[in-house]
Order: sequence, then structure tokens, then C-alpha cells
Amino acid sequence: MHNDILFSLFVVFVAAQLGGEIAQRLKLPGVVGEIVAGCLIGPSVLGWISIEQIAPGTALDVLAEIGVVLLLFSVGLETRLEDLKKVGAIAFLVGVVGVVVPFLMASVWAHGNGFDWDRSMFVAAAFVATSAGITARVLQELRALQRIESKVILGAAVIDDVLAMLLLGVVVSLQGGGAFSASHLLLVLAGAIGFIAVIGWGGTRMMRWNSTWLDKPMGAHSPLMIVLALCLGLAWVSTLFGLAAIIGAFLAGMIASETRQREALEQKTMPLLALLTPFFFVVTGSKIDLHELASIDALWMLGVVTAIAVISKFIGGWLGSIALGPHSATIVGVGMVPRGEVGIVVATLGLAAGVFNNRIYAIIVAMSLLTSVVTPPVLAWLLERPDARGHGDHGDGQPGIDAPT
Amino acid sequence: MHNDILFSLFVVFVAAQLGGEIAQRLKLPGVVGEIVAGCLIGPSVLGWISIEQIAPGTALDVLAEIGVVLLLFSVGLETRLEDLKKVGAIAFLVGVVGVVVPFLMASVWAHGNGFDWDRSMFVAAAFVATSAGITARVLQELRALQRIESKVILGAAVIDDVLAMLLLGVVVSLQGGGAFSASHLLLVLAGAIGFIAVIGWGGTRMMRWNSTWLDKPMGAHSPLMIVLALCLGLAWVSTLFGLAAIIGAFLAGMIASETRQREALEQKTMPLLALLTPFFFVVTGSKIDLHELASIDALWMLGVVTAIAVISKFIGGWLGSIALGPHSATIVGVGMVPRGEVGIVVATLGLAAGVFNNRIYAIIVAMSLLTSVVTPPVLAWLLERPDARGHGDHGDGQPGIDAPT
Repeated sequence: MHNDILFSLFVVFVAAQLGGEIAQRLKLPGVVGEIVAGCLIGPSVLGWISIEQIAPGTALDVLAEIGVVLLLFSVGLETRLEDLKKVGAIAFLVGVVGVVVPFLMASVWAHGNGFDWDRSMFVAAAFVATSAGITARVLQELRALQRIESKVILGAAVIDDVLAMLLLGVVVSLQGGGAFSASHLLLVLAGAIGFIAVIGWGGTRMMRWNSTWLDKPMGAHSPLMIVLALCLGLAWVSTLFGLAAIIGAFLAGMIASETRQREALEQKTMPLLALLTPFFFVVTGSKIDLHELASIDALWMLGVVTAIAVISKFIGGWLGSIALGPHSATIVGVGMVPRGEVGIVVATLGLAAGVFNNRIYAIIVAMSLLTSVVTPPVLAWLLERPDARGHGDHGDGQPGIDAPT
Repeated sequence: MHNDILFSLFVVFVAAQLGGEIAQRLKLPGVVGEIVAGCLIGPSVLGWISIEQIAPGTALDVLAEIGVVLLLFSVGLETRLEDLKKVGAIAFLVGVVGVVVPFLMASVWAHGNGFDWDRSMFVAAAFVATSAGITARVLQELRALQRIESKVILGAAVIDDVLAMLLLGVVVSLQGGGAFSASHLLLVLAGAIGFIAVIGWGGTRMMRWNSTWLDKPMGAHSPLMIVLALCLGLAWVSTLFGLAAIIGAFLAGMIASETRQREALEQKTMPLLALLTPFFFVVTGSKIDLHELASIDALWMLGVVTAIAVISKFIGGWLGSIALGPHSATIVGVGMVPRGEVGIVVATLGLAAGVFNNRIYAIIVAMSLLTSVVTPPVLAWLLERPDARGHGDHGDGQPGIDAPT
């Protein structure tokens, strides 16, 4: 009865390990290898994982979701609210400019390709949202989470997600022909900001004040269990506010980073990441549909779309963080490039709403994933360059190879 | 899109924590609380988890499967092949007698209730297989895995599973009206025994000979990753041989227990268990269908069926291990009682084959689960009795409360 799924679990897990290992031996971030491995075992090439098995809500999809939720939780664990506050203004700028520039450029491109303005804006919405998962994993792999650029990227990713959600609300209501309700959008905005503020400020303050209650339960692992419950709970609640689940998970991690038990929690989160994040990256890779792209026309269009996506986001991030100096601004700009699953969600909505056809859908999905594959090597190279030093307060960042544990 | 499943994950996880905590404060094993919590949030009572969400192959079901696979893997990690060999003869006896006695008693009962002999044997097959998950968790919770009774139970569970698989093959072929092929069954038996022998003997020998290659890969966590891949792989392969996935996982753990890296592996497996085993116990509990049992008749029948299941298995285990003395034999007998998901699988097959109706199905499922709820407190009580001491080679077994970690 369970043969099929057990086989899939085994194949996905092993593919991730082999892909990651090969990538690391080629001096690439492991995550690239995991995504490529996913593409290979997915429906496009070997077909060991079928398209039905990675549909939303299936076991593999949920494991992938848990994987990325735990990843952002662990990134939150290494992030202090105080550090984010220090870079707050820059992160805000990066978030805003990094949304505006891609949105404008993509709208113009889509309009130039025959879409009316309403539809163009819908297409452009798929270019907007940065997916923090890929970048976070690279930063973690290179032990660069304590660098100032990383704080800016993470802070900007939160702001970016709020703006993307609002923008999506606008384009969907414009497309649906419904009355555009500014007051409704303000309400949504207030809800999302309120959620982030209450959890971010209130939660961290409470944990700093007292975290001994985490040790109260009788079960072994009690701090871990409470904190994992918090992580799953906030991931769910953040979707109620229209935000990505990973935003809630990141906040949960940030709250937990204020506790006395932080180091033990970090230790215990590592095996969870080891087991579950491979599912996220392999499933992401397996969603790349090579068949829809098997023509010169489609590849050309994909090239243009990806170039617009990369350049526009890079410019936005770079302009927003130029106060940090050109090298750091370059790191931030590159770090904001991956679109990952957020672009896919918008594309899926657009396809369902009949705003565009299968080919545009496939191209937007491929673009989202391509940005995820392209970014890690560049980011790793930038972070390892000698003139990149001096910004981190974490001296032992030996890049490229993880320490044995 | 993901709201529903994120909510379910959160609810299942929190229910497990609360249930486990309450049970422990009532001096019951935590697992009882987790199963009862599952029944409460499941379709029978609160309905926070729907019947569709726990159907085979769904996300929650797969998480539960991963949970029990990891649990048996970790039990294997604490089990040495040498120790199992020492109790091999007794474990074999317990396995065989513990299958024969329930099968005979249940066949007679079913025949007395109007089933012809072929069908009676099918019904009886659901009484046969011990589910090692529940007992293993209780033994682990009470830090009793190093006791001789635990070794006997674990060894017997492997033998039990082989026999149950064969028996199921016989009754299904008898029922299907097909020719009963002894040679085919012998082949199946040889395959299963061969698999266990090759993996159990060969694997442990190889690891004992050399396990430095586990540290070769460049990724962090490399020994953990390879061993987890082994666990998922053997879990899958054991289903190819008709065995339960947990048998393969147990063997994988036993192999890994021979490595130099065993202690690090144990450390790193704990958080995985903490996150994932709650899904197994809560999902198990949520499968209890109270509605089908809401009549005096049904409850009476359930009582009789459960009594037969408990008594017959207890007698089998007790007789098989009486060489250890009466107290130890009692522990072994009780430890073999839980049927858990194996009984449910047989019942599902029987329903699908039209061998029996919905009510018998519900009663067999309820019996399987009831044995799982009833056993842990009795087992815990027996293990904590002073005259139970002296058999373990693990002195620090402070029962009832897990050490803080």
C-alpha cells in the first residue's frame, strides 16, 4: 500500500544527497545540486516522481512545505530583532524599490507583448516577490547569516512579502472586474503589519523577559516541542493574514532566538533541516517543465523574461542598499533575485483566472525556478570574495565547506 | 492554498503535546495521551481532522508513516544484533506461539459467529500481527530498551511480522478461490527471511568492519544523511518483500548501531522523533470510529473481540518466554498485545474483498486500536515493579519521567 510513497521518499532524499554532494565537489552551493537533481528525477526527465505526486496538498508537497518552514525557522533562530532594527531603513528601501522596479519593467514588457494594462499588471505581479528560501539556504550554507547584507536581505524579504501580497490583491481585484476597494486593501495591509509587529516586537520582548516556562512540561525535548508548535502555529496564522507561511516561521525563529535555550534549539533543529529541507529543493526542481520550453521561441522568451526578472530585482535591491557601499549592495541585489515558489503561486492564479495561457504559465514558472538555480553560485562567489570581508561580526565564516558535525 | 494543511499540522502537533503532557501528569505513558488526543480531534469527536485527511497516501498519513519508521529506526539504533542473538530461541518461540494461539482462538470465535472456515481464517488473520510501534515507544519512554524482555519482544516482532505476512498470503489466496500454492508461499518466505538475514547479518558485519566511509561526503551531517537514506531505503525494500516498512527501518537502525558514530546518530535522531512520531500516534487515534460502536451490541462484540485478542496474544507471548521466569514472561506477553495498524490493514483488505461487513471492520479496527491504548499503562506498571529489576543491564532506567535534555 505504501510502496509508492516510500519509494518516492527514498528517491527524493537520495537524489538530494547526491545532487548536493556533486554540487559541493564542483564548488557550487549544495542547493543548486538539489534543485537540479529534482529536475532530473521529476516528470520532465526520468519521471521517477510524477506530476500528481507534487501537486498541491500531496504528501511530497506538504513535506516540501514543512521543509521550507523549518528552514526559515532556523534562519530566524540565527536572527536577532535588534540586528534587523539596525538595518531597518535600508531593508525597507530594498523591499520597496525591489518591488517597484520589477513591477514597472515587467508591466511594460507584458504590455509590449500584447497584453492590455490590467493583464500586464497581473503578469508583472509574478515578477515581484522574492522567495527567501533559496537565499536563506545559501547564506546558511556559507555561514554568512550574521553579515549585515544577510540582515538586510531577510528584513527586505519580509517587507517584500507584505507588498507582494497587497499588489496581488490589487491585480486580482482589477482583473476580476470588481470595484477596487482601497479601504479593503488598507485593512489587509494593517492586518499584515499588525501581525508582524505584534509577533515580532511582543514575542521577542516576552521571551527576553522570561523563557523558563519553556522548560515546564514533563516531556523530554520540551523547549523544542513548544517552539516547534509555535513555528507551525505562526506559519499557519501568517497565511490567514495573506502572508507566506515562511514569514510566520521566520518570526517564530526570531522569537525563539531571544530565549536562554537558543543554542540547544539550534542544535536540535539541524537534524530536522537535514531530513526535511531536501524535500523542498528537490520538489522545487521537479516542477521545472522542460517540455513546454522545448522550442527556440519559448527558450528565447524565457531568456528575455528571466533577464528582466534578474536585472529588475537586482537594480531594486542595489539601489535600495547602496548606502552600504557598492559591494554590499551587489550582494543584496543578487540575494533578492530568487523568485521560487511565490512566482509559481501567482502564475497558477493567473492561469486559473484565464489571464494567460499555458506557455506564459510555463515560462513564468521556469523563470521563477531559473532565478533560484542561477542565484546561489553568484551569491556564493560574491560572499567569498576578499573585499567582501569586514562587514560580518562572525569571524569563522569558512566558505564553501560545512564543518563536520 | 496551504492554510488547511498547515492548520492540521499545527493541531495534530499541539494535540499530541497536550495529550502526552496530561497523560504523564496522570502517571500514564505519554503515548496513551497522544492516541486519545487523536481520537478527540479526529472525525469521531471534534472533527478538526477529517476522514479524508487521514486516508492512505495523504500528507498526514505519510507523516505518520515516516514517524513510525523513524521510531523503529531509533529503536534499532539501541539494539545490538549480538543481544538479539542471545535471546534468539526465546524470541522465535514467542513469535511462533504468539501467532498460532491468537489465530486458533479467533478462528474458532469467528466460526462460532457464523463465518465459514475460509472466512473465519481471514478474520483471524487480523488478530495475529503485533504492531511493534506502540510497545517500542513505551519501552523507549521508560528507558527499558536494554532489558532482556525488550530484546525478546523486538526479536519476536520481526518473526511475528514474517509469519503474519505468510498467513495473510494463505488466507487471501484461500479466499480468492485461487489454487493454494505452497511453493509460492515457500518462495515468499525464503525471500523475506533472506532479506532479513542478509541485511541483519551482512549489514551489521560490514558496519562493524568499517564505518569511516560514512564521514566521506562533504555535506554537514553526513553520517546522519547516509543512515537516514538507508532507513528510508530499507523501509521501502522491506515492503517489496511483503514485510512492514518498520521492519526495514528497525534493521537499518540495528546496522547503524554497529558504527563508531552511533552516539552522535542517537543524539540527532531524537529531534526527528520529537517532530514526527506524534503524527503517528495522533493519526492512529483519530482513526477510531466511535459512531460505528455506538450501540450495546457493538460494544459487547468489541469487548469480546478485544478480550480474545488480548488474552490469546498474552498467552502466546507468555508461553513462549516462560523460560525467563513468570514476571518477565508477563512483560513479554503484555508487550506483544498491541495490534495497531497491522490489524487495520488486514481489516481493510477483508472489507475490500467483501469477506466481512462494515461493522466487523469497525470492530476489528477498534480492537486493534484499543489494544494499543490498553497496553502502555499495564506495561509501564509491570516494568516499574521492583521485582522486575535485575534483568536489565541498563541501570539508570528511572521510569515514568524522561530526563530533561
